[in-house]
Amino acid sequence: MKILLKISYVGTNYCGYQVQPNGISIQQRLNEAALALFGVPCDIVGCSRTDSGVHANEFCATVAKKGTDVLDTGIPIEKIPLAFSAHLPTDICVFDARWVSSDFHARYDVKEKEYIYRFYNRPVRDPFWEARACHVPKPLSDADLDRMQAAANLLVGTHDFAAYMAQGSKVESTVRTIYRAEILREGNSICFRVSANGFLYNMVRILAGTLLAVGQGKLEPADIEAITEKKDRSLAGSTMPACGLYLNHVVY
Amino acid sequence: MKILLKISYVGTNYCGYQVQPNGISIQQRLNEAALALFGVPCDIVGCSRTDSGVHANEFCATVAKKGTDVLDTGIPIEKIPLAFSAHLPTDICVFDARWVSSDFHARYDVKEKEYIYRFYNRPVRDPFWEARACHVPKPLSDADLDRMQAAANLLVGTHDFAAYMAQGSKVESTVRTIYRAEILREGNSICFRVSANGFLYNMVRILAGTLLAVGQGKLEPADIEAITEKKDRSLAGSTMPACGLYLNHVVY
Repeated sequence: MKILLKISYVGTNYCGYQVQPNGISIQQRLNEAALALFGVPCDIVGCSRTDSGVHANEFCATVAKKGTDVLDTGIPIEKIPLAFSAHLPTDICVFDARWVSSDFHARYDVKEKEYIYRFYNRPVRDPFWEARACHVPKPLSDADLDRMQAAANLLVGTHDFAAYMAQGSKVESTVRTIYRAEILREGNSICFRVSANGFLYNMVRILAGTLLAVGQGKLEPADIEAITEKKDRSLAGSTMPACGLYLNHVVY
Repeated sequence: MKILLKISYVGTNYCGYQVQPNGISIQQRLNEAALALFGVPCDIVGCSRTDSGVHANEFCATVAKKGTDVLDTGIPIEKIPLAFSAHLPTDICVFDARWVSSDFHARYDVKEKEYIYRFYNRPVRDPFWEARACHVPKPLSDADLDRMQAAANLLVGTHDFAAYMAQGSKVESTVRTIYRAEILREGNSICFRVSANGFLYNMVRILAGTLLAVGQGKLEPADIEAITEKKDRSLAGSTMPACGLYLNHVVY
């Protein structure tokens, strides 16, 4: 048995999830906390590799003793979140923990992931959204958001999403299934919430940029079909900045 | 004529609003931005003095040429928010500007101020609320919040609020009029929103601590009357940390 942690973090001060030679990663902080809490070096296996500046409302990772698939601890599982968080900096926390079998894999066993891309919409930047959402100064009307939703609807289903992948990425297949794609307004905040069985590199940030282009009238909702069909990255919208991206939910 | 600015800021990295010998203040940043934008040293007069770590959704301040009550500028007033913000760090911005008469006073002419004190309620701390709200780990039920609202209702009106003032503060009168006092839950977040013709030093943070004590069953709602009556600081609740406090609205 090993432990599956649910983690949330503000990604602003990190070089991303994955351990890097230059810069502090989320994984490094989890490694340090696991060593401090369990008294042995541990392997931390995460559900994905978020980029520098990307946030997580819910990130999943397993902890086992280094080089093994088991973890020995006398700490009751319900006390793990508080105990683990006590060894983490204030911009990372563990909010849930459960035992999983030794053959569970935090990355390969993911059935569905949900991301949120967050914009905020007002003429002047907002200090409270700084590094936590992408600033869109020009007003987007309800009709603009309806156009974005119409475009988002055309993404749902099983498609080849090569047009929405960072150029130069290497991957066996660019086919993915999007289960849901929604545009939500709440005050100044506009969210693109998207759930799929997997995502290509930079896919959510490119989809967000493409939907924003639709909202701003640079693309028509129906253009989505042709962009997807042609598998041409240059036809899709810009890659939106990392600061607006949140891993929101992971389903096993 | 001089200019009245509406400003918002994340107070975390500042020693407070007011210029201090040790530490960077919001006012210092406004002074530097005014000099850069208008080309002359300016006097910035703020609506109040927020403490270190306190935030503002809406703070008001006037700008005039140093030693005078006038400001000369060719910049159209509607361009001031963006132009001024361009000279400010990302945790401060100006979101509104208007001309006011030379005898307007940003502090003495305030008729009403509204503050929010923000708690968040869940067992484990939340990285996204870090330094932006006060963590209350033990669950507060809807009934607990009803008790807090019942207590808040007893604060409304004209009272001597000496019991809710930091000890040692010097002030001519401790009588103030509270217009509204509300407890609002939104997800994990619990806000105490209070509006008055003025506040004593630390008054909102002490009121928040007193209402929290009511929610946690340490005080009864009806105790508020006796605490107010006895003018005894030691009977009221703790002074809550600065990070949960937001100046929210100013009425002239």
